[in-house]
Amino acid sequence: MAEAGVIFVGNKPVSSYVLAAVTQFSSGSKRVVLKARGRAISRAVDAAELVKRFLGGNVSYGNIKIGSEKVGEPGKERTVSTIEIEIVKTA
Amino acid sequence: MAEAGVIFVGNKPVSSYVLAAVTQFSSGSKRVVLKARGRAISRAVDAAELVKRFLGGNVSYGNIKIGSEKVGEPGKERTVSTIEIEIVKTA
Repeated sequence: MAEAGVIFVGNKPVSSYVLAAVTQFSSGSKRVVLKARGRAISRAVDAAELVKRFLGGNVSYGNIKIGSEKVGEPGKERTVSTIEIEIVKTA
Repeated sequence: MAEAGVIFVGNKPVSSYVLAAVTQFSSGSKRVVLKARGRAISRAVDAAELVKRFLGGNVSYGNIKIGSEKVGEPGKERTVSTIEIEIVKTA
């Protein structure tokens, strides 16, 4: 994992990401950020909502940012949308 | 349209929603909210990013909220994730 507390949401089942986030909170993290791009954005939102439901009032959303980045080889670049959802421990 | 300044992002091409948002700003709106649920969430983020690129420094993001709602007939309800992206005119 490149950065502490960051989970990249890709093509695995949503439950993998929920488990990863819940595990991080259980092991003492105060803050987890779910990052995704392109079609995985919807999955990141699903995962975030499930983490919130699972951990109840103990977490809430911090910053939610959207943006774009370029992917692909030089000359074949295309722009994809990105999302970052910060989940913060409150209790 | 149910609410002024609200655009529901569904299954049409992204360009439809970009055009709808840009048209609203051109006709004097100070604020447009893109709403989507389920798989259309990624498309709403794409549309928001394109509106921002199209209107340059004249708009910025306001509140970005994610949540869930129940859809479907009673007894067959399921929960879907939702997003609301507020775009605000700054110049």
